[in-house]
Amino acid sequence: MAYDAALDALKSLLGDRLSLTQADRDLHGQNETWFAPAPPDAVAYPATTEEVSQIMKICTAHKMPVVAWGTGTSLEGHALAIHGGLCLDMSRMDKLVELYQDDMQVRVQPGMTREVLNTELRATGLFFPVDPGANASLGGMASTRASGTTTVGYGTMKDNVMGLEVVLADGTIIRTGSRARKSSAGYDLTALMLGSEGTLGIITELTLKLHGQPEAVSSAVCAFDTLHAAVETVQMVIQMGIRMARIEFVDAMTAQIFNKMNGTDLPEKPHLMIEFHGSEAMVAEQSERFGEVVTEMGGANFDWATTAEDRTRLWRMRHGAYPACIAYRPGCMGLVTDIVVPISRLAEAVEDTRRDIDAAGLVGPILGHVGDGNFHSVLMLDRNDKDEFKRAKEVAAKMSERALSMGGTVTGEHGIGMGKLAYMEAEHGAAWQVMGAIKQALDPLNILNPGKMVPDQTKAVREAAE
Amino acid sequence: MAYDAALDALKSLLGDRLSLTQADRDLHGQNETWFAPAPPDAVAYPATTEEVSQIMKICTAHKMPVVAWGTGTSLEGHALAIHGGLCLDMSRMDKLVELYQDDMQVRVQPGMTREVLNTELRATGLFFPVDPGANASLGGMASTRASGTTTVGYGTMKDNVMGLEVVLADGTIIRTGSRARKSSAGYDLTALMLGSEGTLGIITELTLKLHGQPEAVSSAVCAFDTLHAAVETVQMVIQMGIRMARIEFVDAMTAQIFNKMNGTDLPEKPHLMIEFHGSEAMVAEQSERFGEVVTEMGGANFDWATTAEDRTRLWRMRHGAYPACIAYRPGCMGLVTDIVVPISRLAEAVEDTRRDIDAAGLVGPILGHVGDGNFHSVLMLDRNDKDEFKRAKEVAAKMSERALSMGGTVTGEHGIGMGKLAYMEAEHGAAWQVMGAIKQALDPLNILNPGKMVPDQTKAVREAAE
Repeated sequence: MAYDAALDALKSLLGDRLSLTQADRDLHGQNETWFAPAPPDAVAYPATTEEVSQIMKICTAHKMPVVAWGTGTSLEGHALAIHGGLCLDMSRMDKLVELYQDDMQVRVQPGMTREVLNTELRATGLFFPVDPGANASLGGMASTRASGTTTVGYGTMKDNVMGLEVVLADGTIIRTGSRARKSSAGYDLTALMLGSEGTLGIITELTLKLHGQPEAVSSAVCAFDTLHAAVETVQMVIQMGIRMARIEFVDAMTAQIFNKMNGTDLPEKPHLMIEFHGSEAMVAEQSERFGEVVTEMGGANFDWATTAEDRTRLWRMRHGAYPACIAYRPGCMGLVTDIVVPISRLAEAVEDTRRDIDAAGLVGPILGHVGDGNFHSVLMLDRNDKDEFKRAKEVAAKMSERALSMGGTVTGEHGIGMGKLAYMEAEHGAAWQVMGAIKQALDPLNILNPGKMVPDQTKAVREAAE
Repeated sequence: MAYDAALDALKSLLGDRLSLTQADRDLHGQNETWFAPAPPDAVAYPATTEEVSQIMKICTAHKMPVVAWGTGTSLEGHALAIHGGLCLDMSRMDKLVELYQDDMQVRVQPGMTREVLNTELRATGLFFPVDPGANASLGGMASTRASGTTTVGYGTMKDNVMGLEVVLADGTIIRTGSRARKSSAGYDLTALMLGSEGTLGIITELTLKLHGQPEAVSSAVCAFDTLHAAVETVQMVIQMGIRMARIEFVDAMTAQIFNKMNGTDLPEKPHLMIEFHGSEAMVAEQSERFGEVVTEMGGANFDWATTAEDRTRLWRMRHGAYPACIAYRPGCMGLVTDIVVPISRLAEAVEDTRRDIDAAGLVGPILGHVGDGNFHSVLMLDRNDKDEFKRAKEVAAKMSERALSMGGTVTGEHGIGMGKLAYMEAEHGAAWQVMGAIKQALDPLNILNPGKMVPDQTKAVREAAE
């Protein structure tokens, strides 16, 4: 094997925590969607930052690729070891390091998941709001600049990560950001690392912003006769400055899937799902104003989830949309799209996408975080039908091109990974080369998640493998 | 002169819009605080992005330094041409390029000031919230990641710039970001450029997030017996989740200066100045809850500015604090500090700073954006008293060291410029070298604002000048 010497050194460092078994390699070569498996040569389970630093020194010395692994819930094949090398499974670095109750901040290790963090915070009156649906690791969420249903109220990872500890390709340990709520002290390396998908460094610690549990919460679902009316409603309430914690759109097909898979009896029409957080009075006022807009736009079947159980059920259903879709067409494979357009173009973009999916004869509900202008389609594909896959890729390509032509982006939250690399040049033009220059400066041997994110620099990796 | 050939080429390109006069050079070699003047060799007034690109190509060919200039209101000497070269005065690129009313976004040129933008937006019901006090250019505000009194409610430039057009050192024009409200598409070059102080590129256009004019606004001033009570109040209201648009602290000396310079009759005690934005009901509720905390903390002389005129007067007074201080001690020179600490350490940090200033026998009011944990002292110095200057620098140094020891930052909004360069290593450690590597990758000849921000790379500049 090409990396024998590296693996010997890693074995000395990690002992049992370096795994070469086929089962472990296969497990870390999988992904949740349609990309071909790509197992690493070995899987390491580091326990400390210092160990990650030692690992990176060994991998630099032997030019061995390193791909970090959180929970493997990425939808774009980010963590596939397409050039082999070492998978760095961060699951043992999953501790809460320090809670700063008075500052509403917390330091955590990257392998902790968002649900575990919120469970640990339960007694404090604080919570971490970013929720991409999956119970992802916080390191993974930082690496993909994740967001989710609460972005309209609380922001994305970009808005909620104050600082990072990162191990660079050569093993250097750096700290970015601070616990100050703002800073003008130099280049924003925290922001640069967020969304860099493991290509610039390995995140070994995060300082996160927490939020107070709202005094009052109110959620609702309402149905609309047309997709257009539902999406226009979103546009109106945003312009009116109504403060929402969540506003989600699901189309008629999603409602149908929810009914079948969850036993609900939603009208099989487009819906909005909304939530307000604040004081009792504020939530009451915002809910009322929202209700007025919905009525004006012909919305109906307004159903307020008043108890905590009802709310949990509502959002569990929303978060379970992807597995529900996959289960709805047994044995299918999902191709999940993810674009953002300016709010003014949202209705048009969703309608055009609906038409494209139907014209292609595909099964694909549309749903999304419409308060951000972000929506997805879950294209459910027969694994053996190559033509269906081809048509799905064409629909996805059209969506990405439409997003760009409307001034938007090809990915709002899923990231680039394998699936969106082909659009980087179209989205960024000459700026993509700047990303390449930064990658080259920070990882000259191209050992950090090679083959992803930046213009092709896989030469070093290929050489190393020879 | 070292740059004769470059200046000839620039003259051909720009004609009258290249100025070599001593008056113009002196004007662009000044700063608002204590740094020694450093005039450039020439001043260019570009009119288009294409022209900026041509200028950069010429300056790259001749290894001539380039320093961008907005309105010259920086407090840390950012735009001083310490290695000579060309000053790029952006004042002719001051247009509103396109308004996206429905998306609450606007594209502007960098020479437009924030006040002009808000005047142009007046009829739209929208406004741009970031207000560093001075009527700075939007390009300058982006370059220093500026903030100000409204950060607690609306965020800093980081939160309100969606995308940029930037001309790189070699003349390449790139676009960063998009009009999408969020994106996971690659490295966040917008965030990297924000706060890079002209060392990575020249900003030639900005896409900004706008906000709806609030339905209701309510401002108030209240006095406290002790600095500690005022600052503790801030900590409490933040933890209670009271939504403020502004919360400012001024100490007893500032109140005294306001009274003398503005004819007010504030009690000469520490004060908080606060503003709420929202619906009528929301503002009323938040104001009431705030009032309860103030009473509990022994605050008094609660004075609500109910009319728009009263509010304008209040915030004009706050924004005029720096010139008021300078005028209070005629002929003095200001040394303005700028640190941020975690909110839990704020009271302690402000009190320790007060003690340091008094112990050093200096005149220096303390005031700041305490909702962000950010505060300043305006140390008013006799230009001819070298010992006073030395003591002021010592106080400033202690503040920076204290900020770092408390997990904060040496600058919340003024930036690095000349004044904070000496603290970059202490704040960032090994991450400072990463900033240097990025600078090297994007500006290998070190012609963009050389001598600032990153570890010393002035060699190329010195060679060019030989």
